[in-house]
Amino acid sequence: MIVMDQIAAMQALMRQYRREGKTIGFVPTMGYLHEGHTSLIDRARAENDIVVLSVFVNPLQFGPNEDFARYPRDFERDRRIAEQHGVDVLFHPEADEMYPEPLTVRAIVQARADVLCGRSRPGHFDGVATVLIKLFNIVMPDRAYFGMKDAQQVAVVDGLIRDLNFPIELVPVPTVREADGLAKSSRNVYLSPQERSEAPALYAALQAAASAVERGERSAAAIRRLLREHIEAHTHAEIDYVEVCSYPDLTPLETLAGTVLIAVAARFASARLIDNIIVELPKTGEQGDGKGEQPCFARS
Amino acid sequence: MIVMDQIAAMQALMRQYRREGKTIGFVPTMGYLHEGHTSLIDRARAENDIVVLSVFVNPLQFGPNEDFARYPRDFERDRRIAEQHGVDVLFHPEADEMYPEPLTVRAIVQARADVLCGRSRPGHFDGVATVLIKLFNIVMPDRAYFGMKDAQQVAVVDGLIRDLNFPIELVPVPTVREADGLAKSSRNVYLSPQERSEAPALYAALQAAASAVERGERSAAAIRRLLREHIEAHTHAEIDYVEVCSYPDLTPLETLAGTVLIAVAARFASARLIDNIIVELPKTGEQGDGKGEQPCFARS
Repeated sequence: MIVMDQIAAMQALMRQYRREGKTIGFVPTMGYLHEGHTSLIDRARAENDIVVLSVFVNPLQFGPNEDFARYPRDFERDRRIAEQHGVDVLFHPEADEMYPEPLTVRAIVQARADVLCGRSRPGHFDGVATVLIKLFNIVMPDRAYFGMKDAQQVAVVDGLIRDLNFPIELVPVPTVREADGLAKSSRNVYLSPQERSEAPALYAALQAAASAVERGERSAAAIRRLLREHIEAHTHAEIDYVEVCSYPDLTPLETLAGTVLIAVAARFASARLIDNIIVELPKTGEQGDGKGEQPCFARS
Repeated sequence: MIVMDQIAAMQALMRQYRREGKTIGFVPTMGYLHEGHTSLIDRARAENDIVVLSVFVNPLQFGPNEDFARYPRDFERDRRIAEQHGVDVLFHPEADEMYPEPLTVRAIVQARADVLCGRSRPGHFDGVATVLIKLFNIVMPDRAYFGMKDAQQVAVVDGLIRDLNFPIELVPVPTVREADGLAKSSRNVYLSPQERSEAPALYAALQAAASAVERGERSAAAIRRLLREHIEAHTHAEIDYVEVCSYPDLTPLETLAGTVLIAVAARFASARLIDNIIVELPKTGEQGDGKGEQPCFARS
């Protein structure tokens, strides 16, 4: 495994791979790797000649009161895990290498960003989009792998790649969970034992919502109420949002139809957790044929 | 010469060239080609295996009261000129192909854009940066060619390429002029015979400024006054700006030092014209050695 921290050397290496006709799969991360990340790496490993992992805690996507400074970091452990999972190139730049001077040009996300996590993290997705443009230009991948746990991020990246014509295929990968259903997250290490025992209630609430949809519930208000009541009954967390919206456009819905994202975010004392599911329903106005009426759970 | 109007087909072709190890030179234009453009094409032809010319009048970079609808267009003539100058691929997309839906993500230029032309054209460089990100991702060039007549545009593109890590070399090309000094521009066709006879005064004013600098003038205020008086004495145009700033940072200067852009813009009844020169001077605080005191006119 090659470890690099310089942009110019990285671009020279990636050009070389491309000249050799090799396909490149890219997994951008902020490190502190868990099974969610390794599922992305494994998928990239199966589909490409070269697998590139980036580990970079991007200051641009953290708000002034967020956890940039204390975001968990353990590069030696990340390096070991990357090597074990067959990563070819590990890109681990310092912030000064990525942002040597104030940016003269940056990206702003003007759709899909003002709902869900974007509402409580203003500027977050602008920072994500800007660093991804940089990383895409540095790594020049054929495919980029993102976890569906951050469904809104996947929707923003989908827009970024399509609208700015990056010659990259976006590969969304299902959320990896603990045995009790808690979505894997680097921020789970912040949880106290009590919080850790309550945290699976987020996914349990989403499963309860899915069951309600299966039973025929189509009211977004009813689904939101169900989510809120479940989380309030089973945790001490403060609910940040419970939302029901179209995917990937992220338009809030009153009636569930088409591809629907059901998403929650809750603040425990020491960590804010997010989770979501996607349900596939007939589009509004489509006539059910008797077979198509069962929702199909395409991604979770 | 291959003429293309579809993005996906264009990207497939460009990938093919890259796989074959060919170098790609790119000349982005809004068409209505003149000798300024053909100087870019000729330079790209001399330096690359493949030359790509784009002709696209980008609606995103025109303000609501600007000349998007009446911007001069003559695609058959452009096609003929491109062929004569050895262009390999002419990319000529419709606006619907470039912007099929509202953009979810776009670029904003947060430095180098609030002076010179940016002051009277709010949002102009955001539109330029956004379309260039798209075109760079579609054409995937090794080198991109821009005319120094739009010096501010070159400065913005310099920031865009560097800050967002596009693996592209920016090649600035000197302004091409009519025999009487008027900078070549697609907008020159708007000029009445009277305006056309007055228009060379812009470059004459810049030359007078250069002579003053050669004689030792270092006051930006004095240079601006000289420019303004010359243009007012020789034209009926309304001065939009006369500015003296560092290049490529575009910081307004009080005292000329280092690489200095001297730029003018003036509105005739039917066209707004711009022109500029760059002078190279010792940096502030540098001691002259007797030889280095003559300004060197690197680009015009």
